[in-house]
Amino acid sequence: MSEISEIGEFGLISRLTKDLKTINQSTIKGVGDDAAVLNFGSKQTLVTTDLLLEGVHFNLEYVPLKHLGYKAAVVNFSDIYAMNGRPTQITVGLGVSKRFSIENIEELYSGIRLACERYGVDLVGGDTCSSMTGLTIAITCLGEAKKEEIVYRSGAKLNNLICVSGNLGSAYMGLQLLERERIVLRADENASPAFEGREYLLERQLKPEARKDIIEQLRKAGIKPTAMMDISDGLSSEIMHICKASNVGCAIYEDKIPIDYQAAVLAEEMNLNIVTCALNGGEDYELVFTCSLDDYEKLIPLDDVYLVGQITKPEYGCKLIGRNGEELTLKAQGWNFDH
Amino acid sequence: MSEISEIGEFGLISRLTKDLKTINQSTIKGVGDDAAVLNFGSKQTLVTTDLLLEGVHFNLEYVPLKHLGYKAAVVNFSDIYAMNGRPTQITVGLGVSKRFSIENIEELYSGIRLACERYGVDLVGGDTCSSMTGLTIAITCLGEAKKEEIVYRSGAKLNNLICVSGNLGSAYMGLQLLERERIVLRADENASPAFEGREYLLERQLKPEARKDIIEQLRKAGIKPTAMMDISDGLSSEIMHICKASNVGCAIYEDKIPIDYQAAVLAEEMNLNIVTCALNGGEDYELVFTCSLDDYEKLIPLDDVYLVGQITKPEYGCKLIGRNGEELTLKAQGWNFDH
Repeated sequence: MSEISEIGEFGLISRLTKDLKTINQSTIKGVGDDAAVLNFGSKQTLVTTDLLLEGVHFNLEYVPLKHLGYKAAVVNFSDIYAMNGRPTQITVGLGVSKRFSIENIEELYSGIRLACERYGVDLVGGDTCSSMTGLTIAITCLGEAKKEEIVYRSGAKLNNLICVSGNLGSAYMGLQLLERERIVLRADENASPAFEGREYLLERQLKPEARKDIIEQLRKAGIKPTAMMDISDGLSSEIMHICKASNVGCAIYEDKIPIDYQAAVLAEEMNLNIVTCALNGGEDYELVFTCSLDDYEKLIPLDDVYLVGQITKPEYGCKLIGRNGEELTLKAQGWNFDH
Repeated sequence: MSEISEIGEFGLISRLTKDLKTINQSTIKGVGDDAAVLNFGSKQTLVTTDLLLEGVHFNLEYVPLKHLGYKAAVVNFSDIYAMNGRPTQITVGLGVSKRFSIENIEELYSGIRLACERYGVDLVGGDTCSSMTGLTIAITCLGEAKKEEIVYRSGAKLNNLICVSGNLGSAYMGLQLLERERIVLRADENASPAFEGREYLLERQLKPEARKDIIEQLRKAGIKPTAMMDISDGLSSEIMHICKASNVGCAIYEDKIPIDYQAAVLAEEMNLNIVTCALNGGEDYELVFTCSLDDYEKLIPLDDVYLVGQITKPEYGCKLIGRNGEELTLKAQGWNFDH
């Protein structure tokens, strides 16, 4: 293993960015000057940023660095898709403590670069520096969209349908599984983790994908959502954001929330309520969107898209309708400073 | 003082971004969705990012939070000016430990917002999260420029003039002063810091400005630099970057390097070589640029711009010419992982 101090900041940067190729026409100049140069001709530019901190957003005891890099990039792409845009460039800020070797950081970067390749995104710049404690990853993503294509969270209208992609709660259950096995391994070094048959949950937690495919399907089907967000803090929190921004209410039907079988089984085993996990678990990076009732016929044939509720008048509030018709008020748990 | 957990992430964000107004026409939608929406019609878009970590880039024992916010924003603007562009938007990622109160973070943000106002930049988004240890600030800045206006670091040509703005080494001397007084205060709580007559050095370290004025002067004078960078790691490191990217060499004249009187006096007092400080000290956020010999007449009347050397053939290398004509090879000290 090589110490980063052997090659210094500039050495590390040039190693990390060697052979970087640009994919997007809008990337005029990438890494290697004070700023990258981009050219978004007649399109609008989207920008989003995410900060990931060791011990808060990830635990390197069970997250491989390559997966971490992949995820750090993908969660930013997800934000751009949630605007109905296409991610085109990222910048990467890294704070690295002495505990990490050059190979470690290259591993992390290889995950970021893999994500960029898969999603057709250019890595155009960044900042790498030493840190006193642990690993810090700051990623900013730019994207583009035609003006008329952009979907804000404020456009939901009365009687709109509410849809989600994929299934919810799986990433959270993956995290619970990793946490449980970490504790088992601590108590008994020779124990082998009980991951068999649960690989899907691990993948959802460790290597999530952004739903580019859903955006493409919607476009092909001629559906433009009225409002959309990606589900990073849980459906409950996100739909409340949409309702607040759109000045509407909503009804979500408990029995319509898509849940994976493995997630449900593990929740049962761990005495967790899977619906609560699905509503508040977070990190699913699925999409939640609203669209006009007129789009109902076009929605049905879509793959992996589920109707979960409808938009109501604002006076109604944000409600979960239980299996027996009972109404519960949704709560935004999301992220908070106390965890 | 209020604990951040009282109001949670969303509460904090809405408090920090209350009454934010947008200044730039290119800002279509700022804070409040998955991504900001920008529109750079026919211009090119610049993007740069910086990561600042407590204990590495700043020490809160002597840096007021408002100044820190101001500086964190300004150093990004400086990168955009160094491309001959105009900064237009920033995103702010903050990692905050429990030790900080809401008022602390508002203080930090007030500095960021003040910098944005002064430089005409919109704050369009961000990410705020808890951190286990200390404060992390990740800022990404977007800017715009006409295609033909952008100045890369790779354009320096043989016999070009090398110029710098302002003076060099003052920010570094400001840091030395703060460090010295910190140690004195630790030893004797009742000692009062010896800052009198040295306010300028403190200001250069704590509240630097980006040289928007120099960019404007150059534009008015009809000078387009052939290469340009901002001086964040020291003149030595930056001019070597320019020479490497442009495939040229350079000669910098020791007696031409602009040095502030207070900085020189303090260096003397502290037994430091002020020229070394000026070449390698860093954090000056002045501009270094090269331009054609034909621009000589136009350069002379410019305010606060100094001719420090000339571009040579690459075989010559990067040299400092001493007061007695001796040649020394420049070294890039810049930042490294060992500090």
